[in-house]
Amino acid sequence: MTKTYYYSAEDLKVYMERFFRRYGVPEDDAATMAKVILEADLRGVDSHGISKLYAYYGNRLASGCVDVTTPTSVVRETATTILLDGGNGLGPVNGCRAMQACIAKAEENGIGVASVRNSNHYGIAGYYALMALAHNFIGISLTNSEALVAPTFGRTRRVGTNPIAVAVPAGKHRPYVLDMATSIKALGRVLIREAQGEEIPLGWGIDSNGELTSNPGEVHQGGALLPLGGTEEMSGYKGYGLALLVEILSGVLAGAAFGVNVGSPLSTSGPPADVGHFFMALNVESFRPLNEFERDMDALIEQLVHSPRAVGKDRIYIHGEKEFEHIEECRRNGVPVIGPVVEELTAKGKERGVEFDLQPLRIC
Amino acid sequence: MTKTYYYSAEDLKVYMERFFRRYGVPEDDAATMAKVILEADLRGVDSHGISKLYAYYGNRLASGCVDVTTPTSVVRETATTILLDGGNGLGPVNGCRAMQACIAKAEENGIGVASVRNSNHYGIAGYYALMALAHNFIGISLTNSEALVAPTFGRTRRVGTNPIAVAVPAGKHRPYVLDMATSIKALGRVLIREAQGEEIPLGWGIDSNGELTSNPGEVHQGGALLPLGGTEEMSGYKGYGLALLVEILSGVLAGAAFGVNVGSPLSTSGPPADVGHFFMALNVESFRPLNEFERDMDALIEQLVHSPRAVGKDRIYIHGEKEFEHIEECRRNGVPVIGPVVEELTAKGKERGVEFDLQPLRIC
Repeated sequence: MTKTYYYSAEDLKVYMERFFRRYGVPEDDAATMAKVILEADLRGVDSHGISKLYAYYGNRLASGCVDVTTPTSVVRETATTILLDGGNGLGPVNGCRAMQACIAKAEENGIGVASVRNSNHYGIAGYYALMALAHNFIGISLTNSEALVAPTFGRTRRVGTNPIAVAVPAGKHRPYVLDMATSIKALGRVLIREAQGEEIPLGWGIDSNGELTSNPGEVHQGGALLPLGGTEEMSGYKGYGLALLVEILSGVLAGAAFGVNVGSPLSTSGPPADVGHFFMALNVESFRPLNEFERDMDALIEQLVHSPRAVGKDRIYIHGEKEFEHIEECRRNGVPVIGPVVEELTAKGKERGVEFDLQPLRIC
Repeated sequence: MTKTYYYSAEDLKVYMERFFRRYGVPEDDAATMAKVILEADLRGVDSHGISKLYAYYGNRLASGCVDVTTPTSVVRETATTILLDGGNGLGPVNGCRAMQACIAKAEENGIGVASVRNSNHYGIAGYYALMALAHNFIGISLTNSEALVAPTFGRTRRVGTNPIAVAVPAGKHRPYVLDMATSIKALGRVLIREAQGEEIPLGWGIDSNGELTSNPGEVHQGGALLPLGGTEEMSGYKGYGLALLVEILSGVLAGAAFGVNVGSPLSTSGPPADVGHFFMALNVESFRPLNEFERDMDALIEQLVHSPRAVGKDRIYIHGEKEFEHIEECRRNGVPVIGPVVEELTAKGKERGVEFDLQPLRIC
């Protein structure tokens, strides 16, 4: 049985700052990187947390695939919109700069929209939506990504798992925080089933002929993920439409790569990934007083969570609730990191002169 | 076998204008109503076309449930945002006014967002997104609607089928026009199966216990529709999250009704439906020259439609393509209206003094 190590969030953050500085990332940017990656682990999105420290960042920085200085520049700007060139820098650094610009515009003019080209994998989409939320704004964050999803009636990978993240303030209840891939599942979920020798539910993906398969290996090798909805009968063309929308707003609007031309976050050679992002911050008070909005959000949330449950179900959730509870759990018991990740961090840390020497709070 | 009648689009428009004027709707608004409803039939969205002339509009106008003058008023306005009170008027009239305001703001300031409270069913969401498209803007249109969809793990109707419509200009290819309910299917699709004595695919809806059922009657009576994705295993919580997002942006942001409090478009008594809408127009040229954007849209579209097809599939579509082809088909052969609808229009038209006396181009 694999062990899980629990670390203090602060320790992980300090380690990751050191990690990025080791690769030549400027101090402020290293702090940003650590915060964005840690937030994924805190929210329980392990697939975008410290487990990807080498895969998405370290390996690419080491091979010179990413500009460590993240030389973001403004291509075009108005009172409410901004287009940034991410200079093939770190995605999270570009993402934070872009959302900060949105927030400033929303403070001044009620709304801000930012578009970023020439960037890289930006971690969890939700991080940037949450930045807007901290100002009581509605925050939206979209990004395109390496093509892994087939269009309806297709059989090859043509669009990314292209996430949609939206955060909305509430009053006494926790905010609504949606952060979803527009595919049914991320590829990682398929790979886990493959590693465990288990089948996947029919619908998650297709084989190289474009037919549904419960064999994760067929999706992984030569197949593709299906968009939210899955088959045509279950309206998979809607998920395909949403994935395409994210591709348009993140990729095409920014003048970034799109579709099959978006680079892999795992690649350590070849041209820049040229990932595109889209951000928006909307000041609720352009429409109505915040306290009235929050009161109504609470009422809507209550209509849902207090509604009758399906037989055998314990609870109805609002989006983001599970993640907020995971953060609280981490505060109490530390941030979980699974054994194989700790082993990788330890081994590679030694190799690359940035030793992973943290003392876990507990191991179990 | 039911017959289908084909009419000239112009004849249908002129008839519907007469219809609305008969109910006291001002001339300009009657023209708007006719255009919005006709567009649904032209695009093949029969469920929102002339088949609903009485159900959604005539019956409610006759019973005084809707203000025939649509006294829209501005509640709050900035350079980029506007909140309208729809005065319990006609949804399509409010929708057009709101999107016109967005377009004007996008022309002036690059972006416009409008929110409408106290409105009614506004027909097809796509109509308003297409209005923005006519100015080469990206158009977004959302509305909440009567609660018909259960939250994940719930068993009662708590949110509407809440559509998302987005239109994006392309170059030599047709524009991308997404217009989708956030439920797997609309209730109408379930009712058709029920009327035909057929089963529905497992996943479209649940019975009164919250369990999947293939019996459309159980979904119709006491059950609920499922959000896009369906079950938890297939990520139905994502569709639930999108439905909730539309509820928030259309209902809560506007200060309109939300969730179970949104009125039915079929009701002929009771309080105003208080439907909320959300619109946005975004000028592509705030980010990059339109011709470059359109060139890249064409390239993205080509990546998709020319990609290898699944075994047994003829074609890969872009969203909106089928609808544009339906419009062309209608231009050639007339707009189809099924026999039962023609019978209702004929019988009620006599009764209410607005005779449906159009000559069909053909009947078959």
